[in-house]
Amino acid sequence: MGWQKHYLDKLSRFFQIRNLLLRQALAECLGTLILVMFGCGSVAQLVLSGGSHGMFLTVNFAFGFAATLGILVCGQISGGHLNPAVTFALCLLGRERWRKFPMYFLFQTIGAFFGAAIIFGMYYDALWDHPASFNVTGPDATAGIFATYPGNHLTLVNGFFDQVIIGTAALIVCILAIVDPHNNPIPQGLEAFTVGFVVLVIGLSMGFNSGYAVNPARDLGPRLFTAIAGWGSEVFTVRQGWFLVPVFAPFLGTFIGVMIYQLMVGFHMEGEVRDRKESTEQETVRLTNVTSKDNSREAVKERNEC
Amino acid sequence: MGWQKHYLDKLSRFFQIRNLLLRQALAECLGTLILVMFGCGSVAQLVLSGGSHGMFLTVNFAFGFAATLGILVCGQISGGHLNPAVTFALCLLGRERWRKFPMYFLFQTIGAFFGAAIIFGMYYDALWDHPASFNVTGPDATAGIFATYPGNHLTLVNGFFDQVIIGTAALIVCILAIVDPHNNPIPQGLEAFTVGFVVLVIGLSMGFNSGYAVNPARDLGPRLFTAIAGWGSEVFTVRQGWFLVPVFAPFLGTFIGVMIYQLMVGFHMEGEVRDRKESTEQETVRLTNVTSKDNSREAVKERNEC
Amino acid sequence: MGWQKHYLDKLSRFFQIRNLLLRQALAECLGTLILVMFGCGSVAQLVLSGGSHGMFLTVNFAFGFAATLGILVCGQISGGHLNPAVTFALCLLGRERWRKFPMYFLFQTIGAFFGAAIIFGMYYDALWDHPASFNVTGPDATAGIFATYPGNHLTLVNGFFDQVIIGTAALIVCILAIVDPHNNPIPQGLEAFTVGFVVLVIGLSMGFNSGYAVNPARDLGPRLFTAIAGWGSEVFTVRQGWFLVPVFAPFLGTFIGVMIYQLMVGFHMEGEVRDRKESTEQETVRLTNVTSKDNSREAVKERNEC
Amino acid sequence: MGWQKHYLDKLSRFFQIRNLLLRQALAECLGTLILVMFGCGSVAQLVLSGGSHGMFLTVNFAFGFAATLGILVCGQISGGHLNPAVTFALCLLGRERWRKFPMYFLFQTIGAFFGAAIIFGMYYDALWDHPASFNVTGPDATAGIFATYPGNHLTLVNGFFDQVIIGTAALIVCILAIVDPHNNPIPQGLEAFTVGFVVLVIGLSMGFNSGYAVNPARDLGPRLFTAIAGWGSEVFTVRQGWFLVPVFAPFLGTFIGVMIYQLMVGFHMEGEVRDRKESTEQETVRLTNVTSKDNSREAVKERNEC
Repeated sequence: MGWQKHYLDKLSRFFQIRNLLLRQALAECLGTLILVMFGCGSVAQLVLSGGSHGMFLTVNFAFGFAATLGILVCGQISGGHLNPAVTFALCLLGRERWRKFPMYFLFQTIGAFFGAAIIFGMYYDALWDHPASFNVTGPDATAGIFATYPGNHLTLVNGFFDQVIIGTAALIVCILAIVDPHNNPIPQGLEAFTVGFVVLVIGLSMGFNSGYAVNPARDLGPRLFTAIAGWGSEVFTVRQGWFLVPVFAPFLGTFIGVMIYQLMVGFHMEGEVRDRKESTEQETVRLTNVTSKDNSREAVKERNEC
Repeated sequence: MGWQKHYLDKLSRFFQIRNLLLRQALAECLGTLILVMFGCGSVAQLVLSGGSHGMFLTVNFAFGFAATLGILVCGQISGGHLNPAVTFALCLLGRERWRKFPMYFLFQTIGAFFGAAIIFGMYYDALWDHPASFNVTGPDATAGIFATYPGNHLTLVNGFFDQVIIGTAALIVCILAIVDPHNNPIPQGLEAFTVGFVVLVIGLSMGFNSGYAVNPARDLGPRLFTAIAGWGSEVFTVRQGWFLVPVFAPFLGTFIGVMIYQLMVGFHMEGEVRDRKESTEQETVRLTNVTSKDNSREAVKERNEC
Repeated sequence: MGWQKHYLDKLSRFFQIRNLLLRQALAECLGTLILVMFGCGSVAQLVLSGGSHGMFLTVNFAFGFAATLGILVCGQISGGHLNPAVTFALCLLGRERWRKFPMYFLFQTIGAFFGAAIIFGMYYDALWDHPASFNVTGPDATAGIFATYPGNHLTLVNGFFDQVIIGTAALIVCILAIVDPHNNPIPQGLEAFTVGFVVLVIGLSMGFNSGYAVNPARDLGPRLFTAIAGWGSEVFTVRQGWFLVPVFAPFLGTFIGVMIYQLMVGFHMEGEVRDRKESTEQETVRLTNVTSKDNSREAVKERNEC
Repeated sequence: MGWQKHYLDKLSRFFQIRNLLLRQALAECLGTLILVMFGCGSVAQLVLSGGSHGMFLTVNFAFGFAATLGILVCGQISGGHLNPAVTFALCLLGRERWRKFPMYFLFQTIGAFFGAAIIFGMYYDALWDHPASFNVTGPDATAGIFATYPGNHLTLVNGFFDQVIIGTAALIVCILAIVDPHNNPIPQGLEAFTVGFVVLVIGLSMGFNSGYAVNPARDLGPRLFTAIAGWGSEVFTVRQGWFLVPVFAPFLGTFIGVMIYQLMVGFHMEGEVRDRKESTEQETVRLTNVTSKDNSREAVKERNEC
């Protein structure tokens, strides 16, 4: 055992990365890889088995719990966003620094790319065995395993304004409620599970139009992969450049979601906390005229904790 | 970042509402919106996809977890009732003030109205694509996406006395057990999840007759919306004024549920707590004759905590 | 509000039952009522809707979460057994007094009887609408909504020895692990959820033979109700007195389950605790020769807590 | 009660095993038995009922929650591995001693063997009633109830390199994140549930190729049983010795999973902890020159706890 521990320690020292942002980005990469691997894997299982080993509900479950697992794997290090829209929302509210945004976006997309690659490798035989192996459109199209494509009934306008914006706004409102520091309603450590339920519910109720692409990285990474792996440039050109919708619309949806949550819940809770703090500070000022400074500070602390 | 924080702070001060009841009502509005948006969204997905993207189980899951998410979003501010019947039950037991009831009822209905509107917008294309776009009755009727309608086998009497009363009574018995201050069996913060399971189970076992309309606001708001949005006044007149059943019957069911829970569990636990308190008080009286008042009070406190 | 509180207090005093055992039995009655109401309700929904509003999975979910909710409603008062086999197991291990067993059995059966009655009332119209309204046997038989009947492939011997004994033994092994005082692996308050998962899993994997009747009260109560409500004495005579199997076999299964758990896990953990205690006591004896008795007792306590 | 307690105590003393490793191995045996009993039971229910009492989703749920229950039953005693690949991963990382590995492997396989035997006994009648009672291959083959066999589309190379390695690597990455002492993201006691979700998700997204045999013991034990119970030696010879893949490939997958997790998350967290410790130690050295040794140690402790 001594030899093994020594060797493990040496390995650990050799590979250790000390740059915090890079480490966080790597963790996001692994988390998004897990999200896309399990999520797209379940779509692959549904499509390639012709329905015998899956249904739309299993896809919803897989994406939901995959989000949970992805967050669990990287949450302690990077916050477990897995989604550039979430990073964007937290930057908008000043809870994350803006310079994190491009770094996270890049590594999340890379993670999604490799997640799709793993599923491609895993179901390589089944894909060749499938009647419409590398079709982007048509009844048995397999491109939908990796990236999202709109249903036939959907116009680009409805797809843009309604589906992606509404889906992302709903996601962001729920996530903000879950991670709001003034309104944390769930026990420490269950955030990941709750976010998983949010993703599950969005899939159950908003998945029909275009496959709930509420995550630019989750859609762009696998789409890039399919373009390389054999489906060709059609994945970008189909439906007049639909691929731009799941990349850009979520950020607009994020903005709307942040506004709705802040206007209806967030601002009032923050305000209450601020009001309490200010009234305590005024009281403190009066107190300091009488007692020594050190004592009064302790009083403030105690009041804040109450 | 400094500029951003300053601007956010200014926004927060501008929009902050200081009236507590209004803030609570707004939070209820958002929570009910989320409940109806995800819940009715899953029905829409089931109906409009013709069963390919949903089944009755997904509707049950969606309503259950939507209730969980709605409560998580507003629970810390307003209590997370989402349902006038729940507000009514808590008022009956003297745990909420009666003046909250009309305010909550109004804003819950408004939230449900807008939740339905969002789903209408999101699935607008799919709705037009559907063979029976705006039918209230018939095999492919779409009005059932938003409000509830009784099954063909159901008479009005059975619908009124059994389905709605029993469903609501069962909901209320379970919710009272979950939030009973003398009988709180679950860890702090998991109430929302447990209520979600209650809604899920009610859907799994009581959803066949008339779609488990155990919530007047959830039914009335979307029904009003459908009347405006194109289904017309038929949503009110169909089945000899069925729409009154899910509005009024739940309150009767609430009353029955409260009675059952109190008679079989609640009164005895309250009584035990009261008995303990009274016996301690009597002991205290005897004690005060001997020792100083301050000490005896501490003794009482210690006993109560045991 | 003052008037309301006064009135509620008066009601509470009037109806309060001070006998602990009766109160516990009443709570068990309500808990089992909830279990059977939601559980049998889901079977009714599956059978009466002809599969459109349910499938075998929804029945499994409903029974699992119904067990969770039943335990939550009565767990703090009566322990939340809901099942005479569980009461029997705890009596066997000396954790409950034997005189509780007949009382619990009776009230659990009464609760199950009324749970079935509620479902009968709720789905009364749908039952008359069904082609085989009150059939005990045959392809569309409805008696299976309430009590369990063996599949056609099952012989009485296989049904007795394997299904019921194995199912109950598996249930008891898992429940003993969950509530073992020396091996409590889950956070306080999540026992009810975990038992729900046990019931769910038993349904998913052991439900095909005869509908997992692992609970004498859950089977006997509804069977009595069906005999009265219109299905007649055939519910008792069908398949050469099958009804005796789910009443008696579970107790044998309980005994086997208790033995398996104790032999493979329980005895060794209890033994370890006893060994530790005895060695501490011996140490204490040596210690008392040196120091005063009071101090040494504190030392023992501290050791036990470590 | 006195007599009963005395007798239970005597039984407990008689059967108590004091050897820790044997006790742990026995607990692993029971845990794996539960995993295989519920897991294979659900496959049996699906196959033997011809789809009326199950679908692929129920198998996924059953295996997931069976893993949870298996871990709950034995987790406090043996760690709840249930899978030689998990034991192997923890040995690789130096968190378990290597001598545990063969012992656990053996008893996990024995447990899986008896778990399969229980299901065989339980569904004995149904098996004989099935058209293809003891077939290893063909459309209605029943050998797949117990051990895993590759789909027709799968080549041995794809099966080996992709399915089993990827599946096991994904399992190990998630489990390492869940049990990482420097990155424990979930509340104490919920590990078992989270591992259950991991197994569920793997089934939802990686179960199509060959039935997610990510566990050598779970596959080898039941396969041995089927060879004895009537399916014959064909279970080993079918598909050019496929049975070796689920026995050996998982260990390679484990190695890859351990490497991925350590390179992307683990090493950096361990390094951070080590860096902090070393810097504290250096500080301590400087401190000891000034103050007494005992005080400085306390300072170190306080720092570590911060």
